[in-house]
Amino acid sequence: MAGKVFRSFMPLFDRVLVQRFAPETTTKGGIVLPEKSAGKVLRATVVATGPGVEDKDGKLKPVTVGPGDEVLLPEYGGTKVTLGDEEFHLFRDGDILGKFSN
Amino acid sequence: MAGKVFRSFMPLFDRVLVQRFAPETTTKGGIVLPEKSAGKVLRATVVATGPGVEDKDGKLKPVTVGPGDEVLLPEYGGTKVTLGDEEFHLFRDGDILGKFSN
Amino acid sequence: MAGKVFRSFMPLFDRVLVQRFAPETTTKGGIVLPEKSAGKVLRATVVATGPGVEDKDGKLKPVTVGPGDEVLLPEYGGTKVTLGDEEFHLFRDGDILGKFSN
Amino acid sequence: MAGKVFRSFMPLFDRVLVQRFAPETTTKGGIVLPEKSAGKVLRATVVATGPGVEDKDGKLKPVTVGPGDEVLLPEYGGTKVTLGDEEFHLFRDGDILGKFSN
Amino acid sequence: MAGKVFRSFMPLFDRVLVQRFAPETTTKGGIVLPEKSAGKVLRATVVATGPGVEDKDGKLKPVTVGPGDEVLLPEYGGTKVTLGDEEFHLFRDGDILGKFSN
Amino acid sequence: MAGKVFRSFMPLFDRVLVQRFAPETTTKGGIVLPEKSAGKVLRATVVATGPGVEDKDGKLKPVTVGPGDEVLLPEYGGTKVTLGDEEFHLFRDGDILGKFSN
Amino acid sequence: MAGKVFRSFMPLFDRVLVQRFAPETTTKGGIVLPEKSAGKVLRATVVATGPGVEDKDGKLKPVTVGPGDEVLLPEYGGTKVTLGDEEFHLFRDGDILGKFSN
Repeated sequence: MAGKVFRSFMPLFDRVLVQRFAPETTTKGGIVLPEKSAGKVLRATVVATGPGVEDKDGKLKPVTVGPGDEVLLPEYGGTKVTLGDEEFHLFRDGDILGKFSN
Repeated sequence: MAGKVFRSFMPLFDRVLVQRFAPETTTKGGIVLPEKSAGKVLRATVVATGPGVEDKDGKLKPVTVGPGDEVLLPEYGGTKVTLGDEEFHLFRDGDILGKFSN
Repeated sequence: MAGKVFRSFMPLFDRVLVQRFAPETTTKGGIVLPEKSAGKVLRATVVATGPGVEDKDGKLKPVTVGPGDEVLLPEYGGTKVTLGDEEFHLFRDGDILGKFSN
Repeated sequence: MAGKVFRSFMPLFDRVLVQRFAPETTTKGGIVLPEKSAGKVLRATVVATGPGVEDKDGKLKPVTVGPGDEVLLPEYGGTKVTLGDEEFHLFRDGDILGKFSN
Repeated sequence: MAGKVFRSFMPLFDRVLVQRFAPETTTKGGIVLPEKSAGKVLRATVVATGPGVEDKDGKLKPVTVGPGDEVLLPEYGGTKVTLGDEEFHLFRDGDILGKFSN
Repeated sequence: MAGKVFRSFMPLFDRVLVQRFAPETTTKGGIVLPEKSAGKVLRATVVATGPGVEDKDGKLKPVTVGPGDEVLLPEYGGTKVTLGDEEFHLFRDGDILGKFSN
Repeated sequence: MAGKVFRSFMPLFDRVLVQRFAPETTTKGGIVLPEKSAGKVLRATVVATGPGVEDKDGKLKPVTVGPGDEVLLPEYGGTKVTLGDEEFHLFRDGDILGKFSN
């Protein structure tokens, strides 16, 4: 189960570990993701985040998303990471397009 | 209806979610968008905006447009996003060319 | 007439909306623009400007040109915009080469 | 043995010296790294780190990982270094994707 | 005559309007510019300058050359401008290589 | 002898003058550099350094290595310099990968 | 003679005007520059320098070399300048590799 893996992995800086929705999933909010967008911009769940980066005065700027958030990812970018036998992706906080509220 | 979708989606940072006008639409201000510019710079309506980005002193700089604003988009750029079964685009606030007043 | 259009359109940030002179125009100052430079660096009239951009301390830096100014545009760059049935161009304030005084 | 080598080598600035896991290794946390990811993003052990870099006010910003940490490396990048007869890699602290807690 | 033109044209920011010497000209200082360098780095006379650019604290930094100065231009760069029926060039103040004193 | 040369040559800014080890050398620390890495990342001895560069407040930031230090060079980069009849290389302080302690 | 020329030419900003040694010259310090490096990194004499550039607080940062200094130039870069009938080169102060003390 993914739960175990992300609890033992801590992204560094402003990196965010996400797990993409399966292409055929219907989201909790009832929004259906059409087939044709499957290989493109997609929804994912945040599983772990880094602490953020320090601004020029040394103050930590936390990331804008948190574990459990449903987010919209850009079509390109991110780093594929295999933890356990599951596939995750790492994105910079600033590359995440938006989040869904319920 | 688009109303439902953008109420549940929050762009991050200085991103602005817009919905383009249908190519054959005549705008409220009575300005007719000629056919030949259909695939080019276009008008769109802002449906949701991010909170903005922090400047170097950590003060939030809000975006310059708001929901309902009619804006002029650049010909290129932006990220196509499919929410529900409608098509939207995300642009950086700084990439929006201008807005129309009524 | 262009007057109506630019009064309803507000460029954002440091963008400047200009309308190029017709290629065969003789300027008010009596300077004749030779045919061979028609496709190149050209004179234009500023029709609307953005409010400017904020400097690093959050103070608004207004643009250096204003509506009615006759300016010299660079040969390349700018974004063509069709408003009403007339053609305009948007340039960054910093890309405008100079202005003409009368 | 690697221990001797890294004790005599000090990376400069924010560089981190790591030694990659052998492709077939099972990690301490019990997570098995599948064969197919062997040539890609990989786990490694930090063997030595630089002191960090100074921020704009001259205050040293230490690196975020330390000797013994198990880290996740990006697929590309880093500099291969041969010390003694063993192979190491140098990465910038900011290029390390995350670390594993036990 | 060039005098009229540059009096009615004001370069913006740190731009400098110059007029190149004719290739066969002998300079006032008696230095002869050999034929073979004609298409290369060349001397020119400053005819008008912009007010300069503001530094990060909003203080205007004037340009380092003034009208009448004889300057050395880099071989490449600059923007050709036709004013009246004469040819000028616009260079950034920082791209001008040096000036000649008499 | 190299001693004479580097005493009369002062690198500027944060440049570091190094002399590479001969490919077949065994280092003092007893670490043998294998043949196959000869054309790659290599050890060298620092012979002279620049004073460093000033930070944004005008305070001199000295370089992190000094004459006599044994350092690890990156595989690529640096500038070959022939002083007397010996070959040296100039590297930026920040490009030197690490140093060896004895 | 070069003396006359560089007295009438003032480089701007942090530019440094140098005159390369003739390829067969033996330097004052007795260091012979081998033939094979003739087209490469070379020694030159500084003939004139700009005043330097201002740092972010508007304080002038003078250049690090002065007229008469013997310097080591990088193999590539610089701008060839013909003044009178002699050939000079302009380099940025920061591109000069080092200087020779006597």
